[in-house]
Amino acid sequence: MRTIWWQDGQVKMIDQRILPLQFAIESYDDYRAVASAITEMVIRGAPAIGAAGGYAMALAAQQSPATDRDSLLADLAAAKEVLDAARPTAVNLTWATQRLLDLAAHLVLPHVDDIRSALLVEAERLADQDVAINRRMGANGAAVVPHGANILHHCNTGSLATVDYGTALGVVRAAWEQGNPVHVWVDETRPRLQGARLTAWELMQAGIPMHLIADNAAGHLMRAGRVDVVLFGADRVAANGDAANKIGTYKLAVLAKENGIPCYCVAPTSTVDLNTLTGDDIPIEERSWEEVAVVDGVQIAPDGVPVYNPAFDVTPHRYLTGIVTEEGICYPPFDVSLRRAKEAAEARIRNE
Amino acid sequence: MRTIWWQDGQVKMIDQRILPLQFAIESYDDYRAVASAITEMVIRGAPAIGAAGGYAMALAAQQSPATDRDSLLADLAAAKEVLDAARPTAVNLTWATQRLLDLAAHLVLPHVDDIRSALLVEAERLADQDVAINRRMGANGAAVVPHGANILHHCNTGSLATVDYGTALGVVRAAWEQGNPVHVWVDETRPRLQGARLTAWELMQAGIPMHLIADNAAGHLMRAGRVDVVLFGADRVAANGDAANKIGTYKLAVLAKENGIPCYCVAPTSTVDLNTLTGDDIPIEERSWEEVAVVDGVQIAPDGVPVYNPAFDVTPHRYLTGIVTEEGICYPPFDVSLRRAKEAAEARIRNE
Repeated sequence: MRTIWWQDGQVKMIDQRILPLQFAIESYDDYRAVASAITEMVIRGAPAIGAAGGYAMALAAQQSPATDRDSLLADLAAAKEVLDAARPTAVNLTWATQRLLDLAAHLVLPHVDDIRSALLVEAERLADQDVAINRRMGANGAAVVPHGANILHHCNTGSLATVDYGTALGVVRAAWEQGNPVHVWVDETRPRLQGARLTAWELMQAGIPMHLIADNAAGHLMRAGRVDVVLFGADRVAANGDAANKIGTYKLAVLAKENGIPCYCVAPTSTVDLNTLTGDDIPIEERSWEEVAVVDGVQIAPDGVPVYNPAFDVTPHRYLTGIVTEEGICYPPFDVSLRRAKEAAEARIRNE
Repeated sequence: MRTIWWQDGQVKMIDQRILPLQFAIESYDDYRAVASAITEMVIRGAPAIGAAGGYAMALAAQQSPATDRDSLLADLAAAKEVLDAARPTAVNLTWATQRLLDLAAHLVLPHVDDIRSALLVEAERLADQDVAINRRMGANGAAVVPHGANILHHCNTGSLATVDYGTALGVVRAAWEQGNPVHVWVDETRPRLQGARLTAWELMQAGIPMHLIADNAAGHLMRAGRVDVVLFGADRVAANGDAANKIGTYKLAVLAKENGIPCYCVAPTSTVDLNTLTGDDIPIEERSWEEVAVVDGVQIAPDGVPVYNPAFDVTPHRYLTGIVTEEGICYPPFDVSLRRAKEAAEARIRNE
């Protein structure tokens, strides 16, 4: 089962807000509703929202009353703007919406309905490619996971964060599928608890040994020699290798460096944005005070407490051992290796 | 109002489990119930449970049916054993119970009831001294807080963690009372959320500017240059300066060092244990899976999730700029400066 798919003219998604205690599928026939679903975190994870962006553009084309190409393009450009604003930190969203918009702009087809159909085909292709990319990333990354490793993992980067299989959790999955008896320390990942809710659930479903920990326990484990490798995903990787990811990732990378533990960011080349030169250029989304002060309707702080709630942080590239992509593992200097990986991925898409 | 006090032959405590949304006072007339209150975290914070240990020994003396000195000493020794086991990491508890037991052993009084009275007087004195010590620590520490500093604070070290005033939060309070317009970033401090529940509440009551953050946000703030000093307490400081404190403290110290930010542990000399040579000798209490998987009755992880939940970690002394005590700020080499501070404190107690 995928996290997101197209069915009967609608976009379907697993509602990730209510996992692991409930399971439900949401349906969308309006691209604006998909944008809201991203903001409300019905779906999250950079590759998954990339796929959502693709499907939402296909929806926008269906919704548009345009009877000529220029009107359709104008409607698609307007839809792209709404969608891109739904999660400013993650680049996969704009990458996907741009890919669909570019396709519409370059297609030479007699009828606008043909363009609508072509966009849906492309959105499906984008989702299928995500799964294939994740499997290649998993195979690439599994090579650096020691036998029987204790892996420290942040946030959720699994099937739920992608269309299927996962990025960093795809590496865990690939290692496990190769017979490597790994064990995962699952950061609960406050404030949204994606680790406790989603990663723990995925690993338990897959039968991969794990323990849930408070984020605060990661340093203690590393200092005690009980972590062999740190793995996480990314919402955007800058041209120099600086990686924006879920808040709390930076501290893991610093702790890993301090304790001599290899630390890998696992991200498809669609997450690498060569137009973002360094991490300083990545916008960091700030989210509601309620995410910190209220857990599932239960208030855990005084009434009226002031809260600062950045959703992401930037890990400077000097803390990363490598960046695992579908085209191989990029090592420093990242400005060179990431550019090569991007070029290899583009060549592959052209040849497919 | 104090966190803990003696009234009508009973020990009274603020129930810290239900703050900040509810406020209640618990009463104890059995030392075993005080030990359970420590385990269940009705009261927490090393200095506060030191005071609880003192009062509990006074209770044990009252409860004892002994009619001669030797029988009373045997009952007190048995009570000390039960109490010390309630929080193995914090040394203040054993420090306080030992102080009361030593007093009982050395008193030359004609009647056992006189010993009972003397123990209560000593427990009261210990509680009073805690407040005085905290005020001295506050004054010492305030000197290293820059004007208008952004202070990062972990766990709760305030009035609630002590008899009154606080250790690290006492430093914040002292700086504020001196007219220093500080602002505090309050780590929520998962899993027990002492920052969100208790520190936020204390600072809001005192009118000191603050923002609550997820523990994961601390590194992001430090890297952004938005933290000027890091302050936390300790449950035990070893002879070499290694400090055991609430889980997550170690990562703050590493992040502070990495970002060139001064980092102080604030602890009375009663928390310094010269018999513990290094942090490796400090036992780390592991607590229930429920603290991580369930928040106020709300389950946040899958059924049956395996959890690893260490309550404390050890910060090696090389990460500490200084250790603020009531006898002044100890700087490296800590083995020398801590010993001197202990001697100064003991001389002061003898002279008082």
